[in-house]
Amino acid sequence: MPVYREKLRYTTQGHGHMLDLTQDVAKVCNRAGVSDGLVNLFVVGSTAAIGTIEFEPGLLKDFPNLLDKLAPPGRNYAHEATWHDGNGHSHLQATLLGPSLTIPLESGALALGQWQQVFLIECDVRSRQRTVIVSVLS
Amino acid sequence: MPVYREKLRYTTQGHGHMLDLTQDVAKVCNRAGVSDGLVNLFVVGSTAAIGTIEFEPGLLKDFPNLLDKLAPPGRNYAHEATWHDGNGHSHLQATLLGPSLTIPLESGALALGQWQQVFLIECDVRSRQRTVIVSVLS
Amino acid sequence: MPVYREKLRYTTQGHGHMLDLTQDVAKVCNRAGVSDGLVNLFVVGSTAAIGTIEFEPGLLKDFPNLLDKLAPPGRNYAHEATWHDGNGHSHLQATLLGPSLTIPLESGALALGQWQQVFLIECDVRSRQRTVIVSVLS
Repeated sequence: MPVYREKLRYTTQGHGHMLDLTQDVAKVCNRAGVSDGLVNLFVVGSTAAIGTIEFEPGLLKDFPNLLDKLAPPGRNYAHEATWHDGNGHSHLQATLLGPSLTIPLESGALALGQWQQVFLIECDVRSRQRTVIVSVLS
Repeated sequence: MPVYREKLRYTTQGHGHMLDLTQDVAKVCNRAGVSDGLVNLFVVGSTAAIGTIEFEPGLLKDFPNLLDKLAPPGRNYAHEATWHDGNGHSHLQATLLGPSLTIPLESGALALGQWQQVFLIECDVRSRQRTVIVSVLS
Repeated sequence: MPVYREKLRYTTQGHGHMLDLTQDVAKVCNRAGVSDGLVNLFVVGSTAAIGTIEFEPGLLKDFPNLLDKLAPPGRNYAHEATWHDGNGHSHLQATLLGPSLTIPLESGALALGQWQQVFLIECDVRSRQRTVIVSVLS
């Protein structure tokens, strides 16, 4: 069967905003009609990233804080000379985490742990429209 | 051909324990009977991660030390308010590294470098049972 | 259709050198004759990594600088006891970022953002020959 594909669209609320994609991705897999296979997620753009986390209020603070500790916000980046838009750290954070993730599908469900959800994180300094491409393979 | 799948089970020995999965994954690929394709690895749960490294004794100290430098152990995380289990850093380390990896299969062998092995790292603060899902595509 | 595969070869110029792979990968996809599917990239070896970034001169300084801040160059690593080659940080940086990336193909084109390119980064301390395996699935 060829790859089944849908696009999910989100509006983020600015730097460090994390969104739980798990239910939306699960619905795409259901519509794909695939029981056992793999699902790939890819966020388009260079200032957002995708991963898995226990999606609870504490970690929604801790994880953006970690990224801001590793690549601190500010204008002391060479990237600033190109665009003067104050988002050098956004690019670095997004590149470090990465835009892509592949998850197994088992008996029609995402093979995540009980406390493991799929998230999108906005690394840019303002609200953005984001597109996540969901590709289901069987 | 549909995706061929097996699950590997491991008992980890606590925070920073790294296990070499390379031989086990290679055996799954052999049983799949796939000569050229791709193999996806996914560790279930939000406090473990998967990657590649030169699996030698020095780096088995250096890499967990790096993760502990980036996201230090301790209870100064907002996650602590949810669970009080002292593993906020475990979640952050696992999310930063990621649960998933895809590797090419060539002539029946993993296309790794000579000094490149596949590892599972336990980021949680205690021994855990871990499941790694191996999916082979051709 | 089985996986279509080509290998790309590069000579890097030493630590922190980033190469834009986007056009080379797009050409492989065209030769694969796949319109809609997925492309997986994998760099062989334990001291190089792959990711996406806005490939502009500022970030080509900022991103290697970030990796050198997170895992600083030097000989204060346990890895040094094994090889005495001064590249412990190279291994750590490469493992942190990862060797593998999967990107959707849409209507024959990589589904990247306008300012998002695919890169290879050399983390080792000298010029190296690098092989990137490109696998196209439909």
